[in-house]
Amino acid sequence: MDRRSVVSGMVGLGALAGAAPALSHARTPPRGYPRIATEEACSFPEIVAELKKVAATTGTNLDLEMVQAIYGPQAVEVGTSALAGLLDVGAGRIAAMDEAGVDVHLLSLTSPGVQMFSADKAVALAEIANDRMAEAIARYPDRLAGLAAVAPQEPVRAAKEMERAITRLKLNGFVINSHTGNRYLDEPDFWPILEAAEALDRPIYLHPRAPSDGMAGPFRGANLPGWGFGVETGTHVLRLLFAGIFDRFPRLRIVLGHMGEGIHFWEARLDRRYSFSSYAAGYRKLQLRPSEYMKRNIAITTSGQESHNALDYSIRTLGVENVMWAIDYPYEDSRSAVQFMETAPVSHEQKAKIFGENAQRFFHIDIS
Amino acid sequence: MDRRSVVSGMVGLGALAGAAPALSHARTPPRGYPRIATEEACSFPEIVAELKKVAATTGTNLDLEMVQAIYGPQAVEVGTSALAGLLDVGAGRIAAMDEAGVDVHLLSLTSPGVQMFSADKAVALAEIANDRMAEAIARYPDRLAGLAAVAPQEPVRAAKEMERAITRLKLNGFVINSHTGNRYLDEPDFWPILEAAEALDRPIYLHPRAPSDGMAGPFRGANLPGWGFGVETGTHVLRLLFAGIFDRFPRLRIVLGHMGEGIHFWEARLDRRYSFSSYAAGYRKLQLRPSEYMKRNIAITTSGQESHNALDYSIRTLGVENVMWAIDYPYEDSRSAVQFMETAPVSHEQKAKIFGENAQRFFHIDIS
Repeated sequence: MDRRSVVSGMVGLGALAGAAPALSHARTPPRGYPRIATEEACSFPEIVAELKKVAATTGTNLDLEMVQAIYGPQAVEVGTSALAGLLDVGAGRIAAMDEAGVDVHLLSLTSPGVQMFSADKAVALAEIANDRMAEAIARYPDRLAGLAAVAPQEPVRAAKEMERAITRLKLNGFVINSHTGNRYLDEPDFWPILEAAEALDRPIYLHPRAPSDGMAGPFRGANLPGWGFGVETGTHVLRLLFAGIFDRFPRLRIVLGHMGEGIHFWEARLDRRYSFSSYAAGYRKLQLRPSEYMKRNIAITTSGQESHNALDYSIRTLGVENVMWAIDYPYEDSRSAVQFMETAPVSHEQKAKIFGENAQRFFHIDIS
Repeated sequence: MDRRSVVSGMVGLGALAGAAPALSHARTPPRGYPRIATEEACSFPEIVAELKKVAATTGTNLDLEMVQAIYGPQAVEVGTSALAGLLDVGAGRIAAMDEAGVDVHLLSLTSPGVQMFSADKAVALAEIANDRMAEAIARYPDRLAGLAAVAPQEPVRAAKEMERAITRLKLNGFVINSHTGNRYLDEPDFWPILEAAEALDRPIYLHPRAPSDGMAGPFRGANLPGWGFGVETGTHVLRLLFAGIFDRFPRLRIVLGHMGEGIHFWEARLDRRYSFSSYAAGYRKLQLRPSEYMKRNIAITTSGQESHNALDYSIRTLGVENVMWAIDYPYEDSRSAVQFMETAPVSHEQKAKIFGENAQRFFHIDIS
């Protein structure tokens, strides 16, 4: 996509407002399962306007580099192209989905969401983003679903917005882009958010952002493609696990993209090291082994990690019920992602679960 | 082991000085392959004495916690038990190996090696440790091999000691415990070390230590068992890769323990993100894809990661030639490690490579 796509996308958004649900889409695809992509990024003009202000600031925060690459006056070509795709939640996106054979996008406000804004602004913009997302879904109810933006800066207000997003806006879950102001969700201040997610029975998609300032040192200037995102997000979810969050909120479900950010590759070592509890007096006594929480409280998606070996490993360790398909649109290629999953050496039943059934179950997506 | 083992181990060391090679050990085990354990920790009294001084200091460095747990006045029980095992490079260790059915320990000075000492002290202690290690091996040449300690604080002197360790002491490779003073080996100052390893045709075992100060923030107080070690070491080797170190030193071989610290689980995503080179102007142009360097310049061991699924994944992605067996003695259980590998669902030929042949090739271990 080029810059024109931004315009056509936004025109499309206006032109289609209030349109009837897209009836062109076959409700039961001939292949027997829907292809529901579960980590599909979008944005809205109000958010972009504020991120442009962030991009104009200076600082050493690693997220700022990415924000500047997409929203800054010197945005790189890939960044401006991504921005066009992000802003199009209408006809352009649906056309791209049709072209690649994708049935549903589970939308999420792209990283860093509202998490780099001041608290009041973040709360207000999360509401706006969630309203905009619900409007987009209303136009294409068979083709779009969505994760609500959350402003962890204000946990109690965030919990209220989470309830509104599910009960009023009929969104499907939540997205949080790892740390907020260098703080992690295991801190008790944030527990209202975890409590709300559990009570509403919807997952939190813990999406990457760049390593927090306290972890950023060796990443600065090193250009390790994607690795910092994984380290940040993997560390975050392991902080939750070893802080006992999944004992306190046993039905909380965290979804990790990018083939689980690799944390389940560590399950045997984590189980073993944790069993040496006398090593560090600080290990909290947990009710389950680390690998057991991974199966019970974590689910993963395949976004941007097109490796059949990694998929096979993930199915064997976490179980096929805990693996979902994702593209990471518009940052990754939709056709490649479809091809990856269609050619995966798994059974038809497994493919149906990964492509669609698991997402329908976890996110309460009703595409009939 | 308990405190008595420290004493018996050190007595054993003295009593056996100058003893003939242990002839009790069958040179060709009936099973058809030797079991060579490749990440087996040890220490020596001179090093312990200096680490006790480190343990008496205060600071926020994360390694200090581990040093205090083993060497401090309030050392925990597991720590003192480990210390006993570390110091025994004689009869006690051989007996433990016999009991578990382990043929060879490839010794390495336990983390953080000499890397927390001042430069001059580190250089002197590396030489002492390497001399002591060579003496221990001379007593059991069929049962012990060793990786030389390195003092990266003084790269040129380190390179000279590396040459001495291989050509004079007949050691088998090198061990470096990740960062040194929060600096990483991709910095040009350290290149004499990488050049020496390549010229001497011996791997550098990049062993974990705790996250460097610039990365330690989210790990403080979080007690994530083993995860920080992996993040630190994985980040280190990816810094090498994306800095173009393996273009400059194409025959350099880095060995990673703990099932490769998980970095090869990322190979598809790293390849893909790297291909988006226009995203970040800073990506250095590399001659190969990231996953190709992993196969050419990295080898991994199974230390402390007893997962057949992870082993299978590793063989499929890196190739069986690049996977070696390890225990992580005395921190991990030898019998469990043997059992893990003996029961692995691999062919006899693959088992022979992982248990012994690969280590013989990479580390020039001649156990005949």
